[in-house]
Amino acid sequence: MLRFTTAGESHGPGLVSMLEGMVAGLPLLAGDVNRELARRQQGYGRGRRMQIERDEVEFIAGVRAGQSLGSPIAMLIRNRDWKNWQDVMDPAPREGDPDPRRRAVTRVRPGHADLTGLLKYDRDDARDILERASARETTARVAAAAICRRLLEEFGVRLGSHVTHLGGIDAARPDPMPADINAAADASPVRMLDASAEASVTARIDEAKQAGNTLGGICEVVADGLPVGLGSHVSWDRKLDGRLAAALMSIPAVKGVELGLGFDTARRMGSEVHDEIEAAPGRPLAGNVRRRTNRAGGTEGGMTTGEPLVLRVAMKPISTLMRPLGTVDVATGQAAAATAERSDVTAVPAMGVIAEAMVAFVLAQAWLEKFGGDSLDEVRRNYDGYLARVAERIGG
Amino acid sequence: MLRFTTAGESHGPGLVSMLEGMVAGLPLLAGDVNRELARRQQGYGRGRRMQIERDEVEFIAGVRAGQSLGSPIAMLIRNRDWKNWQDVMDPAPREGDPDPRRRAVTRVRPGHADLTGLLKYDRDDARDILERASARETTARVAAAAICRRLLEEFGVRLGSHVTHLGGIDAARPDPMPADINAAADASPVRMLDASAEASVTARIDEAKQAGNTLGGICEVVADGLPVGLGSHVSWDRKLDGRLAAALMSIPAVKGVELGLGFDTARRMGSEVHDEIEAAPGRPLAGNVRRRTNRAGGTEGGMTTGEPLVLRVAMKPISTLMRPLGTVDVATGQAAAATAERSDVTAVPAMGVIAEAMVAFVLAQAWLEKFGGDSLDEVRRNYDGYLARVAERIGG
Amino acid sequence: MLRFTTAGESHGPGLVSMLEGMVAGLPLLAGDVNRELARRQQGYGRGRRMQIERDEVEFIAGVRAGQSLGSPIAMLIRNRDWKNWQDVMDPAPREGDPDPRRRAVTRVRPGHADLTGLLKYDRDDARDILERASARETTARVAAAAICRRLLEEFGVRLGSHVTHLGGIDAARPDPMPADINAAADASPVRMLDASAEASVTARIDEAKQAGNTLGGICEVVADGLPVGLGSHVSWDRKLDGRLAAALMSIPAVKGVELGLGFDTARRMGSEVHDEIEAAPGRPLAGNVRRRTNRAGGTEGGMTTGEPLVLRVAMKPISTLMRPLGTVDVATGQAAAATAERSDVTAVPAMGVIAEAMVAFVLAQAWLEKFGGDSLDEVRRNYDGYLARVAERIGG
Amino acid sequence: MLRFTTAGESHGPGLVSMLEGMVAGLPLLAGDVNRELARRQQGYGRGRRMQIERDEVEFIAGVRAGQSLGSPIAMLIRNRDWKNWQDVMDPAPREGDPDPRRRAVTRVRPGHADLTGLLKYDRDDARDILERASARETTARVAAAAICRRLLEEFGVRLGSHVTHLGGIDAARPDPMPADINAAADASPVRMLDASAEASVTARIDEAKQAGNTLGGICEVVADGLPVGLGSHVSWDRKLDGRLAAALMSIPAVKGVELGLGFDTARRMGSEVHDEIEAAPGRPLAGNVRRRTNRAGGTEGGMTTGEPLVLRVAMKPISTLMRPLGTVDVATGQAAAATAERSDVTAVPAMGVIAEAMVAFVLAQAWLEKFGGDSLDEVRRNYDGYLARVAERIGG
Repeated sequence: MLRFTTAGESHGPGLVSMLEGMVAGLPLLAGDVNRELARRQQGYGRGRRMQIERDEVEFIAGVRAGQSLGSPIAMLIRNRDWKNWQDVMDPAPREGDPDPRRRAVTRVRPGHADLTGLLKYDRDDARDILERASARETTARVAAAAICRRLLEEFGVRLGSHVTHLGGIDAARPDPMPADINAAADASPVRMLDASAEASVTARIDEAKQAGNTLGGICEVVADGLPVGLGSHVSWDRKLDGRLAAALMSIPAVKGVELGLGFDTARRMGSEVHDEIEAAPGRPLAGNVRRRTNRAGGTEGGMTTGEPLVLRVAMKPISTLMRPLGTVDVATGQAAAATAERSDVTAVPAMGVIAEAMVAFVLAQAWLEKFGGDSLDEVRRNYDGYLARVAERIGG
Repeated sequence: MLRFTTAGESHGPGLVSMLEGMVAGLPLLAGDVNRELARRQQGYGRGRRMQIERDEVEFIAGVRAGQSLGSPIAMLIRNRDWKNWQDVMDPAPREGDPDPRRRAVTRVRPGHADLTGLLKYDRDDARDILERASARETTARVAAAAICRRLLEEFGVRLGSHVTHLGGIDAARPDPMPADINAAADASPVRMLDASAEASVTARIDEAKQAGNTLGGICEVVADGLPVGLGSHVSWDRKLDGRLAAALMSIPAVKGVELGLGFDTARRMGSEVHDEIEAAPGRPLAGNVRRRTNRAGGTEGGMTTGEPLVLRVAMKPISTLMRPLGTVDVATGQAAAATAERSDVTAVPAMGVIAEAMVAFVLAQAWLEKFGGDSLDEVRRNYDGYLARVAERIGG
Repeated sequence: MLRFTTAGESHGPGLVSMLEGMVAGLPLLAGDVNRELARRQQGYGRGRRMQIERDEVEFIAGVRAGQSLGSPIAMLIRNRDWKNWQDVMDPAPREGDPDPRRRAVTRVRPGHADLTGLLKYDRDDARDILERASARETTARVAAAAICRRLLEEFGVRLGSHVTHLGGIDAARPDPMPADINAAADASPVRMLDASAEASVTARIDEAKQAGNTLGGICEVVADGLPVGLGSHVSWDRKLDGRLAAALMSIPAVKGVELGLGFDTARRMGSEVHDEIEAAPGRPLAGNVRRRTNRAGGTEGGMTTGEPLVLRVAMKPISTLMRPLGTVDVATGQAAAATAERSDVTAVPAMGVIAEAMVAFVLAQAWLEKFGGDSLDEVRRNYDGYLARVAERIGG
Repeated sequence: MLRFTTAGESHGPGLVSMLEGMVAGLPLLAGDVNRELARRQQGYGRGRRMQIERDEVEFIAGVRAGQSLGSPIAMLIRNRDWKNWQDVMDPAPREGDPDPRRRAVTRVRPGHADLTGLLKYDRDDARDILERASARETTARVAAAAICRRLLEEFGVRLGSHVTHLGGIDAARPDPMPADINAAADASPVRMLDASAEASVTARIDEAKQAGNTLGGICEVVADGLPVGLGSHVSWDRKLDGRLAAALMSIPAVKGVELGLGFDTARRMGSEVHDEIEAAPGRPLAGNVRRRTNRAGGTEGGMTTGEPLVLRVAMKPISTLMRPLGTVDVATGQAAAATAERSDVTAVPAMGVIAEAMVAFVLAQAWLEKFGGDSLDEVRRNYDGYLARVAERIGG
């Protein structure tokens, strides 16, 4: 089973991303990963740190001569800011240090893990929590997922995302969607596919910044080119929709996930929700049928249908406000204004990239479950055999 | 780690629910489980089957003299309808049977697993898929979760659910919520806490039935009495919100999940989303603080805060319409009207009970991770020790 | 991933065996399982219970018309002795029962889980532990594994076992081994392939019985027909040898596991241990090579080589002695003679069948990891494709 | 659940060790890890590389100011030899390189993963396999386990190992064992506790070296100070003995594992195998009892008894012989002498350290399952509560 683990504190020496269970023979360059890391650092409304970082990956293991080896792939991404934080975040104790708890955080920030983590792990300094709970961790997710994307690309799967809502402003959804969603979205500072909304959104961001406030939004992730039958209906923990929901809800600040029409299905009659099926020779990915609509968003019974997978993810506004919220100082028990460490107004554009990453991981995992195989060639052989069989089934 | 597996086809001999990893010494009666099974069978808009079934559990393993033993708990729930389906669903081959594929389903139903499962598992008869993909499977989930609830009840956790939307009609959310949500909700045929909406909803259900159509809706699940610190921020797959989302999205027909304000957070400013914190001696579950609001829905950083957990789940209308949708007959490749096997108009009231069940499982699992222990007494000792420590922290 | 869970107490209502993740389309009859259950009940030296039980499986889920469905397979095996134990093992509390702790076990038996389990799970009556720790549980393992065997058989894998040592007496290992090991071993009351040793072994068993003592022994499991490449070297928990060792050491009373020459390799020079390789066209399973010897026992680097897998398992004598050992009565803290509940002299012949079962499960799991697939046909297609590719590699 | 993953090729940039699920607040210094890495590099009979490496760990994540944070701990161990291998092992493709497959290995070595891995992963150069299958990988295991040891040490658990057999020569087992096994064993160049055997063993190693041959051996691992009740009897995959066997058998070149008397139990009567129990106030770890013997090696029913855990592990001679074995050149299909890359005569002394590491990991994992907790203090509180309860049980 494909699995990944990340490690790393926000201001520690760096991040480590470990992907275990990837096949051998996958063409893979540092640039494939760095490109996704750069996409994650885009977006109007980000603060200073995004300029500092410019993340770059070092392959420590699992890659040789531009190909995966089948062994665990370990990537190291150094934190460029580490030199400024070495005294605060040193793994070693600093004896004789006059201020060993420099930059301790006790005015815990509402909306963050600060307080819950501090009580759970029994720490005095919320920095011991927030350094890990930081969205910086998602960099390592994006790195692992960049490799998953490479696998999916080999089979013609296209993953993209765009912002459909930001700070109270909806973007119109283009119809039809552009063939290359990311080419269009990445060209927009707010990753919207609606040029007319862009100006109002950037203005809204500027206003919020002025007010020391923050903004949330909604992203849509679309995956096209998937064959019918990823995931399974047989057990609750094999259902692809559940696994996607877990992956997406685990992104910091995400508070809602929906598939296809999502919450809107609750308001419609059955006849307006389900996707009628018709024969469509020449569509082997979907079993030579077509859904007349794709309200389901690409799954039925916890399995892909062969139609595009469409997910939406809601992100709350960034929890650190420059005009801080009321809280308690855990050192004194007194009321206080929350610590204000970081300054982005919104991370919604970046969140789309992270959501793509989580979807890519889940899909690659489901892919290898379905097709087995230890080398790219073997996966391809198994995939081709499956598609050929599927193509025989209906009107075949 | 607490884990559960279910087995069973909708018209097969029965369902099996297996819960592995529960502590010893938990008081447990068949009635504890049967009560939840009965709650799942409630609800206006259900068809004939709900009357037939009246599910009852038989403990096969793991329970003795009214207590759990710490060993795997296996429960058998016979399908009362089995006698009518024995020829169709016989595990053994029936040689010489004149019609071995009696009741074969080839006019695959849109919105169900019929077609995706048939292609994935390479079957000719969609019955081989739909019997398992049926919502009947959730009976076994509710059984396993009834035991998880018993554990949580020992610690004063109260789980409830109610319908907030059904078939286009919103229920008003009572403020404050009743102390015992289920006592109120279970008394309503549509499990709403808004008596004024009930009549319109049942009328709407009757209309839909008349029209051969189906209805979806939204349920809210609330868990009260949880201590701060269930779940974790340290790794993506430990975050409680992600695990809850997976569990809920895996319920058949669920298309959306949200926590706290959910999608609405995307439309608000940060200052209107995050929950300010204030000292509140005498609230050890929350670390002697209070959130002035609970917009987060009870988690921060993937951990419980000590405030009530509030989740909402959107369910699409039942996929089998009595006025069937257009589809393809997989045996012939020709256009056809979808098979119409079952007749409920809506399962939204029942879905709340199932959603409670999935939440109860995830919470019990997180509970045992946090507190360890092999007997109820040991869990209690560890829990008490933790709460005492938490109570010392802020203003303690 | 293929996984299985068992439930059931020795004198409770029955056992449940649940196998999750098996492909669809596997031909499967109750007789396939019952045959293995019967093999497990063989053997000279067993007491009365083996006659009572004659285990028979009821498929509750996952099988239809003689084929697996891809859904979880649940099997129920009723304990025939249950009627005599209903008062002792009733899942429900029996109020007003004059002797509610009838047959309580407090004189804990050395060598059993009685005392360790009682302290861990904080129980007063060791019956709450021993009912589950009993070797009766392995019946459910054998049932799940019988299905795994059916899968392997479809690909020509042959699994067998025989006793190489019992109660101080070694059996000579035939050279060459018979093509069908089990046909020969099952014909022997002690499952030995050495007729000359049989008589002394049965005499030794009779003597031990007379003396109220018990005997241990060693079994060898052989799996033939496996392709090169099951398991993996890439991570410690993917290595097939480790996974086999876990599965075998988890059998009650097993104290040692070895592969190939096993402990004997420690006493030899490298040149006497490693298996030289030579070209051997027409052996696609092994990559068209042959090892001149098979001292490794069929794996290199945690992967199958294509040569027979050969494992040996050491079982201690049964822990319940009719001339009981000294112990403590946990109710009084006083010295006591251990409870003596069961009377077999040796279970070594049966243990071989259980060891085969555990090996079959691990191999089927590794098989589905390597070849993927959701139907038997798909696994076969992927397997054939792999073998064809392997056959091209060396001298191809 | 505590889990660890390693990454790294033998001559790649370095190794990464990731430990996920460790509690917060554990005192932890790089020196704690480096000390174990140095112990792994000891031993008479090692070649040049052991001098080169002198492994040192860099904490990348999860440790701050000398304490664990509860977040994943990532360690980087650079390969000092990397500079000499950069052209061969470069992750990036080297275009225009005149000899891109420099040092390709096609004369696959018997006893290694070379051939099995090459066929499984469909590679042309066995270096793509052997770099990962190398015992160098165990360095990263020892690093992760050094942290597990730190946890266990906090509770007074002492782990040690010694060589009981090497190259045909048995060491006498001291009786009683020294209180600090490693202090004694690490002082011996062959890690034996029998000074009289040492000289013959080193002579035997010299002879084998002369002859271009290699030697195997047996190590014993002992863990003292464990409480009763780690592991469980309830399910096959929770049994501590099985989990230990998996962990040990996964060490490269290990071919056998036994617990307590191990294979010898098969040759004894029951009365000579099981450990009689007697009251022993003041031994809370064992429940205030004592086994008169410890033939079981510290477990009953898959759980620790409170007596020392005693395991033995058999290691085959190193597979690479300087007088190479016969094999096939996979590039040509012709007979060939196997590649001879590395030159140690025996790794048995180091294997003991690795075996300790694997045991430490399994024990720490079982520890956290039993006691739960997110901080060292919380684990301690739960542990103390359990011991107090256990102490009440028998004669309490």
